[in-house]
Amino acid sequence: MAAQVAILLLSGGLDSATVAALLRRDGYAIHALSFDYGQRHQNELDHARLIGQTMGVASHRILKIDLGGLGGSALTDAALAVPEDGVGAGIPITYVPARNTVFLAYALALAEVLQVRDIFVGVNSQDYSGYPDCRPAFIEAFGHLAAVATKLGVEGEAPRIHAPLQHMRKAEIIQTGLALGVDYGLTRSCYQLDAEGRSCGRCDACRLRLTAFAELGQSDPAPYR
Amino acid sequence: MAAQVAILLLSGGLDSATVAALLRRDGYAIHALSFDYGQRHQNELDHARLIGQTMGVASHRILKIDLGGLGGSALTDAALAVPEDGVGAGIPITYVPARNTVFLAYALALAEVLQVRDIFVGVNSQDYSGYPDCRPAFIEAFGHLAAVATKLGVEGEAPRIHAPLQHMRKAEIIQTGLALGVDYGLTRSCYQLDAEGRSCGRCDACRLRLTAFAELGQSDPAPYR
Repeated sequence: MAAQVAILLLSGGLDSATVAALLRRDGYAIHALSFDYGQRHQNELDHARLIGQTMGVASHRILKIDLGGLGGSALTDAALAVPEDGVGAGIPITYVPARNTVFLAYALALAEVLQVRDIFVGVNSQDYSGYPDCRPAFIEAFGHLAAVATKLGVEGEAPRIHAPLQHMRKAEIIQTGLALGVDYGLTRSCYQLDAEGRSCGRCDACRLRLTAFAELGQSDPAPYR
Repeated sequence: MAAQVAILLLSGGLDSATVAALLRRDGYAIHALSFDYGQRHQNELDHARLIGQTMGVASHRILKIDLGGLGGSALTDAALAVPEDGVGAGIPITYVPARNTVFLAYALALAEVLQVRDIFVGVNSQDYSGYPDCRPAFIEAFGHLAAVATKLGVEGEAPRIHAPLQHMRKAEIIQTGLALGVDYGLTRSCYQLDAEGRSCGRCDACRLRLTAFAELGQSDPAPYR
């Protein structure tokens, strides 16, 4: 049987680490792709690297891209404050315009170069911040685009976008990862990590994560300040 | 009447310069977006800048992005030769994997930041090199994606992707631009421009361009070596 090969968007966070563990369980060779996009939580990338190593990825590319240069998000613009008062209705200021569209576009480019059809992404739309580009409709629309946008698609081997966590709650995701031996102490979700890699415990991402660990009766192994 | 505003992918080539002239005629304020993506014909960007100035764009961003780092194209990899033996069947080695997907993803991000709905791109699918991401089906699929991928879309103001040259032949495009006063001497189409900005006259892009000028009984005002 030919080995299965996957491209994985790996962020340093909890979700994509869980997807990596699922792929490892299923025997995939993983080509990881991360982005240095001017995020204020830069050492997220150190964690992405560590997770990649732990999961034994076949390759790991970190692309430096100029997304922060466009502005408009609290995650890339230090002049905008990250909200700390809980997950609200609507799309928050931490939304990075078209981030997942840009990330998946690069994944599509890598799929063409490596001739790999299967692209995995850790988005989910249950316990999330309400970003438009995390919803199932987005993943589906990108799948349609992938078929017509690529040489692989023209040749009848259209890339497939997989979002295996799409309909899972955050606690289910953590439970799945724990059963697969994921060390969540290596992952970071916080939008405003400090220089020592400690999380704030107050931003949306921290709140969703801490609530999920609490729901499982577990404590989060990652450090908080 | 409120001024119309557009985002335009501006390459330094003949097609996007013509779209700029159409937008100028129609009274649009133009926010131009170009990419330094490791293309071997780097001084294409000098021409994009010049065209932007001539067209009086409201702003012009040139984003440096790491597309060449992925490899796989004769346009970004000096180790791969640009074919000079005419436009053939199939998708040529000059295809840059997922290039227009990546470019439009950034345009979508800029649309979100500037709150501008209308995105223009100079792709056409008549006299072209057969790239999958120049076809009408691609533009249409990206339009669907734009609606679900963005905050603008969620708010009922989905970005629109316009490709006004989509069904025009190259000669028609040139004729349209000449009538609008475009100085095609400022534009470059060649995949292997030399350091002095002279075109090769032999790659697909040069052939399509020269044939179109000849069809109109005109000579191309751009320099050839």
